[in-house]
Amino acid sequence: MDIMSNTVRKELIQLRRKFHQCAETGWLEFETSIYIIEFLKSQGLDLKYGKSIHGERIGLPSKLKMDAHKMQLTQMKVDFDTSEILEGYTGAVAILDTQRPGPTVALRFDIDALGLEEAKEGHRPFLEHFASKNKGMMHACGHDGHISMGLMLAKSLASQRDQLSGKIIFIFQPAEEGVRGAKSMVDAGILNNTDYILSGHIGFSKKNQVVCGTGGFLATSKLDISFTGKAAHAGAHPELGKNALLAGANCALNLHTLTQFGGGMSRLNVGILMSGTARNVVPDHAHLELETRGETQEINEDLLERVYRMIEASAHMYDVTYETKLMGSAPSYQFVSNEFTQHIKDIFGELDLEIIEGGSLGGSEDITYMLRTVEKKGGHGLFLLFGTDLVAPHHNPRFDFDETVLEQGYNCYMKIVTDLLEI
Amino acid sequence: MDIMSNTVRKELIQLRRKFHQCAETGWLEFETSIYIIEFLKSQGLDLKYGKSIHGERIGLPSKLKMDAHKMQLTQMKVDFDTSEILEGYTGAVAILDTQRPGPTVALRFDIDALGLEEAKEGHRPFLEHFASKNKGMMHACGHDGHISMGLMLAKSLASQRDQLSGKIIFIFQPAEEGVRGAKSMVDAGILNNTDYILSGHIGFSKKNQVVCGTGGFLATSKLDISFTGKAAHAGAHPELGKNALLAGANCALNLHTLTQFGGGMSRLNVGILMSGTARNVVPDHAHLELETRGETQEINEDLLERVYRMIEASAHMYDVTYETKLMGSAPSYQFVSNEFTQHIKDIFGELDLEIIEGGSLGGSEDITYMLRTVEKKGGHGLFLLFGTDLVAPHHNPRFDFDETVLEQGYNCYMKIVTDLLEI
Amino acid sequence: MDIMSNTVRKELIQLRRKFHQCAETGWLEFETSIYIIEFLKSQGLDLKYGKSIHGERIGLPSKLKMDAHKMQLTQMKVDFDTSEILEGYTGAVAILDTQRPGPTVALRFDIDALGLEEAKEGHRPFLEHFASKNKGMMHACGHDGHISMGLMLAKSLASQRDQLSGKIIFIFQPAEEGVRGAKSMVDAGILNNTDYILSGHIGFSKKNQVVCGTGGFLATSKLDISFTGKAAHAGAHPELGKNALLAGANCALNLHTLTQFGGGMSRLNVGILMSGTARNVVPDHAHLELETRGETQEINEDLLERVYRMIEASAHMYDVTYETKLMGSAPSYQFVSNEFTQHIKDIFGELDLEIIEGGSLGGSEDITYMLRTVEKKGGHGLFLLFGTDLVAPHHNPRFDFDETVLEQGYNCYMKIVTDLLEI
Amino acid sequence: MDIMSNTVRKELIQLRRKFHQCAETGWLEFETSIYIIEFLKSQGLDLKYGKSIHGERIGLPSKLKMDAHKMQLTQMKVDFDTSEILEGYTGAVAILDTQRPGPTVALRFDIDALGLEEAKEGHRPFLEHFASKNKGMMHACGHDGHISMGLMLAKSLASQRDQLSGKIIFIFQPAEEGVRGAKSMVDAGILNNTDYILSGHIGFSKKNQVVCGTGGFLATSKLDISFTGKAAHAGAHPELGKNALLAGANCALNLHTLTQFGGGMSRLNVGILMSGTARNVVPDHAHLELETRGETQEINEDLLERVYRMIEASAHMYDVTYETKLMGSAPSYQFVSNEFTQHIKDIFGELDLEIIEGGSLGGSEDITYMLRTVEKKGGHGLFLLFGTDLVAPHHNPRFDFDETVLEQGYNCYMKIVTDLLEI
Repeated sequence: MDIMSNTVRKELIQLRRKFHQCAETGWLEFETSIYIIEFLKSQGLDLKYGKSIHGERIGLPSKLKMDAHKMQLTQMKVDFDTSEILEGYTGAVAILDTQRPGPTVALRFDIDALGLEEAKEGHRPFLEHFASKNKGMMHACGHDGHISMGLMLAKSLASQRDQLSGKIIFIFQPAEEGVRGAKSMVDAGILNNTDYILSGHIGFSKKNQVVCGTGGFLATSKLDISFTGKAAHAGAHPELGKNALLAGANCALNLHTLTQFGGGMSRLNVGILMSGTARNVVPDHAHLELETRGETQEINEDLLERVYRMIEASAHMYDVTYETKLMGSAPSYQFVSNEFTQHIKDIFGELDLEIIEGGSLGGSEDITYMLRTVEKKGGHGLFLLFGTDLVAPHHNPRFDFDETVLEQGYNCYMKIVTDLLEI
Repeated sequence: MDIMSNTVRKELIQLRRKFHQCAETGWLEFETSIYIIEFLKSQGLDLKYGKSIHGERIGLPSKLKMDAHKMQLTQMKVDFDTSEILEGYTGAVAILDTQRPGPTVALRFDIDALGLEEAKEGHRPFLEHFASKNKGMMHACGHDGHISMGLMLAKSLASQRDQLSGKIIFIFQPAEEGVRGAKSMVDAGILNNTDYILSGHIGFSKKNQVVCGTGGFLATSKLDISFTGKAAHAGAHPELGKNALLAGANCALNLHTLTQFGGGMSRLNVGILMSGTARNVVPDHAHLELETRGETQEINEDLLERVYRMIEASAHMYDVTYETKLMGSAPSYQFVSNEFTQHIKDIFGELDLEIIEGGSLGGSEDITYMLRTVEKKGGHGLFLLFGTDLVAPHHNPRFDFDETVLEQGYNCYMKIVTDLLEI
Repeated sequence: MDIMSNTVRKELIQLRRKFHQCAETGWLEFETSIYIIEFLKSQGLDLKYGKSIHGERIGLPSKLKMDAHKMQLTQMKVDFDTSEILEGYTGAVAILDTQRPGPTVALRFDIDALGLEEAKEGHRPFLEHFASKNKGMMHACGHDGHISMGLMLAKSLASQRDQLSGKIIFIFQPAEEGVRGAKSMVDAGILNNTDYILSGHIGFSKKNQVVCGTGGFLATSKLDISFTGKAAHAGAHPELGKNALLAGANCALNLHTLTQFGGGMSRLNVGILMSGTARNVVPDHAHLELETRGETQEINEDLLERVYRMIEASAHMYDVTYETKLMGSAPSYQFVSNEFTQHIKDIFGELDLEIIEGGSLGGSEDITYMLRTVEKKGGHGLFLLFGTDLVAPHHNPRFDFDETVLEQGYNCYMKIVTDLLEI
Repeated sequence: MDIMSNTVRKELIQLRRKFHQCAETGWLEFETSIYIIEFLKSQGLDLKYGKSIHGERIGLPSKLKMDAHKMQLTQMKVDFDTSEILEGYTGAVAILDTQRPGPTVALRFDIDALGLEEAKEGHRPFLEHFASKNKGMMHACGHDGHISMGLMLAKSLASQRDQLSGKIIFIFQPAEEGVRGAKSMVDAGILNNTDYILSGHIGFSKKNQVVCGTGGFLATSKLDISFTGKAAHAGAHPELGKNALLAGANCALNLHTLTQFGGGMSRLNVGILMSGTARNVVPDHAHLELETRGETQEINEDLLERVYRMIEASAHMYDVTYETKLMGSAPSYQFVSNEFTQHIKDIFGELDLEIIEGGSLGGSEDITYMLRTVEKKGGHGLFLLFGTDLVAPHHNPRFDFDETVLEQGYNCYMKIVTDLLEI
């Protein structure tokens, strides 16, 4: 059975390459969002974007970076107001309401790129002229493919709306990297009254495999810390200084002692520590960036509480002040096989794919906010992994994938949605 | 001029050896105090002892140690109440009031021994049968000699009371080691209305030298810290524990970063850290003993304030509680040459000794409480060093001194007192 | 079916109480070993003990402790040489050789007590007069019950030797606490040519349950560390000292940062840190006791390698020397269901017990050396948990158990051995 | 007595302002050096510059910074080869050889500016149009005044060469800030056969005071450290990383415990710590910048040795590699009053200034290399402080001084040189 026309196949690849070129990092998906909205509007879908789809956003880039990225954008002529988007209210939500009674199915696609300089030599996107045009930004995690699937699904399902009941919500989520965007959208209420939430990721499995139901998502929190002390001449009057560097160094060291929990695995990493201005001055400032993870939500919360206590104590130790800022967060999520997942596994039997039940991403993804939100109200969630061959691992400057995975993912989503909503 | 009879010379040595034998550490000078009081009473002096000569005592040994020492005392028959002495209100104050108008001169002698096991082989006190009879206690700092001088001065001056005016106060101070006893006596008011305070120390200079005026005393504080956390099985549930060992270790480490002051030298030493019960249990207790020192009073106080903050912060860091206990303290003291010290230097010219003006102990001594107390009210203080040959350095199990230093010290004190008080 | 006579039932309890009274900690099981040997000899079994059943022993108590314990032993008159036992070559091995062809089955019982002061008030062993007679030693982990089972099994099976084929080895292992004794016995070759190794533990499950097959044993290493520096007067010449306390404190702190492994759980605990002699002396010695654990053998080995590196570096940091001593170790062990364990589960069906397949001790036990040794040569191992009601948790001064568990354990072992060896 | 013509007075100020404008930091004094050479050549002095006046240079800025500074230089037409100067062989040495027998007197002036952005509002150099034209570089330590004095002295003395005997060496030293330039020039031998070395500094005393003889220079060393580990995903495989951040943090913390020396004061400051690239990556690099100081040369050397050991050990602790680079150094120097200094004090009596004998800079200055070099061979050194009113302290963006100090300094030098060399 070929449920895919050649036209769809080609357009999937075209779209993927188009978005690969305009790779934009989290909350800076200006052009990306505008293209997405343009495409979806042209399919006659109801659109929501800008402030209306966001609660409080965390982990925003600095105003400086935002302005700099806005500056270098190509002028685009569109017939809708982009001002909020250009303030970082990125992403979009499209609604296909059949006006017929039936369940509400949400599909979520993440759209942000990574802060990496894309490889050139021997790298297909470069050789075939669809490499990122934005310096230091690259789709090295396959989200360009996710956008492509999402847009084609919207197009196909919109054209079949007469054969469908219920409602479909297409969510194009910004800032998945750093687990920042999902919470903002969930807080804005975009998943109210949703019965099913589906999402997935390219890679993490072999070609022609689909992982039906993914768990093992670690709860995580991303934190920035700053310590502020007082500078002083280190030779003449060291005692007049308040040493923020030692506060930060001691904090980093002690934080790393916190990862032993009986209830499961946990992680802590201070990934950045920047402090001081000159060798002969008592350093008056230290900036740290860290993340915590936990196998369960409880472990991550317990760990985070200890982290906050240690930060406070480290500041007190050297009589400096401190500030913390939550830059990202996602809850844990475990896959549990149930009637719904079993049913999906069964209908996947019609696809020419090897089906694996239950997989693990081995990391964190903020889709877990959405999965938990829907399941908490009695709905169902499912996260798929679309196996493919990779040239280089995720988050690598040479990352690229076999584009046939696009139709595989498209087919899987299509299968589920039509199963749930076909009249 | 021989201002010393042979009898005095002999008795000085006899007394020194008698007290060498009953070496008792700080606040445990039970027998020492009783012998001193007995001797002074027999000279017809007014005596004060027990609670009446003490304020709040710091750095007391445990009740267990106090009881243990009391147990092993030889029964002594004396005609005065020793009960308060046996509770650790040790030391004595004798007053020689001539009833004639004149200045009040206080002489201070420290009486405690050290917690050392005295050497045997080749060690004169052992060979000549006057070694300490108390296990683990030894006069290795010459305080036995100080007592001896003090008692003979009291005896001689009491016998000359008809040729003297004013008042002489003989202070036999306990617990100088660990800088504990002086504050307690000063707080009890024993130096109220005192015009001159004199004290001195055997050693720290060459034979036949006397250092007339000593300074360079460092301010110091002695602190005990305990951290109390919560034990837990380190394998099964490490997160249920509150780790007092890490709180203590981190505290010790960070405390040692605190000793840079523009205004002068400072010191900090965590000398003891004891923590934990078993390798598979999260340690629930840590005990630390430390000292601080400062070239000036201000530096030591500033340092101590930082120490307290760090202790508090270290406890908070690992969510444990803490207690601190001040175990000793002494202010700094600088020698300043003035008319009085110049005059003493002049009259010392009659003694057959090399006179050095201004010396330094290079450490801490709680006589500084007394020097500061008297000088603050316009009086004068003087601390002498009586040079002598030492077999081994102070605080060494083989410490012993050339006993001719006893008459040297006796003569110096005698010279000053008679100069000040002779009719 | 009552496979247990009332006599056996009573004797199990009598033996348990007898050994509860002579609780002796690891490598000090002098009286315990002698009683065991006496009992086994009286059943006509071949005995091995002393040096012949030991390789290199680790984690021995100090000579001082060994001598002290020997001193307070009641004089015992026995007709065999106890001299090696009194040097700490404790434990015993009894062989029941039927002289008929058949498999060799080893049963292992651990015999040591814990370094705990047994509770009194409201504590049955105290109230019923079978509390430990040894100060600071107590059977708080049920090994007294294990001995009792082992001796009664030996007695019963010896009396049935005519109905049995093959060979039975009864292993009474010392020093299980601290995972010290198993390696020594395995190294001595007592398991050469063994087909089955069985062992078990009282508790860790509910009354009337038997856990058939236990895994989740963590690999573990126990390490003592000493740092040796140089003492110096902390006020006068701190720079002449080499600070072993700071080396130890910094070592402890940094070691606790080492427990993050992608491959599974790990643990590290510095349980003891003792350093220093006086607050005004730069500490010249530090003693640390720690343990590591790992979900897999590889993790524990990797962790241990990092630990050794950190110890070396910590010493270098403060220019002190160091020594390490391995005080205990056990490999990890996972339960894997197989034909043999399935068969045992089946025959257990005849016992009036709830059978649970696969359990976890949630800690470490050096039986894993024996399980791995036998399985490596193609034999089979099985570790059982005998459920019972506990008054207080293991390793608690109020630990006591419902003694009916003794017959339950006896029956389980009896069932397996007769199944394997009955003619 | 007015030993100063109005012309000299004006030219001193003009020169100071000219050099204030072309403020250039250490080893980048390209324009500064060229102007100095031009001026000195025009006085008919013998000149040495470029590689000939340098040994091994330490604390060089990066090639990038050097090239960037070269780029922004105004084109200058001069009749000598500037190529070596533009490679950072900055500074100049002028020799005035009278060809008459007599002593050799060296005068040293430091010429570098600081890496500061000069103040504008309310700041005289800005208001009167002589502020620094180089972004982020400013003469905030008065070296512009030192250059001015040096040039005018050269001019005046050259014009009086007929009345002088002996030889005068004018040393214009680069890179005094960070104590980098002196060693390089001394190593090149510019002080061989020198009998007197004179230098001084504006400020550090009140207006109309001159400090005749300055000591209290601390020995110092400036060190850069880099630790290189291995990056790894902190969530998935932390154990594959080698954490350079923790190595650096632990190093910084422990280094700060090293500053207690019986022989005198010492200082240590880790002024900069930069580590890591992203919060979810184990940091693979850390960069630290530190300085040590010591009251004596011995203390600084002892401290530095301990610093090197700790760096090595910190690297080993986390299994990372390290590199260190000496970026600056100067020995200690104490002022000792002697016949020469006494003589200078006497002849200063003729100047209308308050004379203070013996002062302290309270910091480090690499003139000490020169002072020690000359005195070691039996020559004499002297460092003067020229008191003046300051608007803001040294090293402050608002630093400016009362320019009458220029003639004060000029007069002092002139007095000494003519006294020593007048026929």
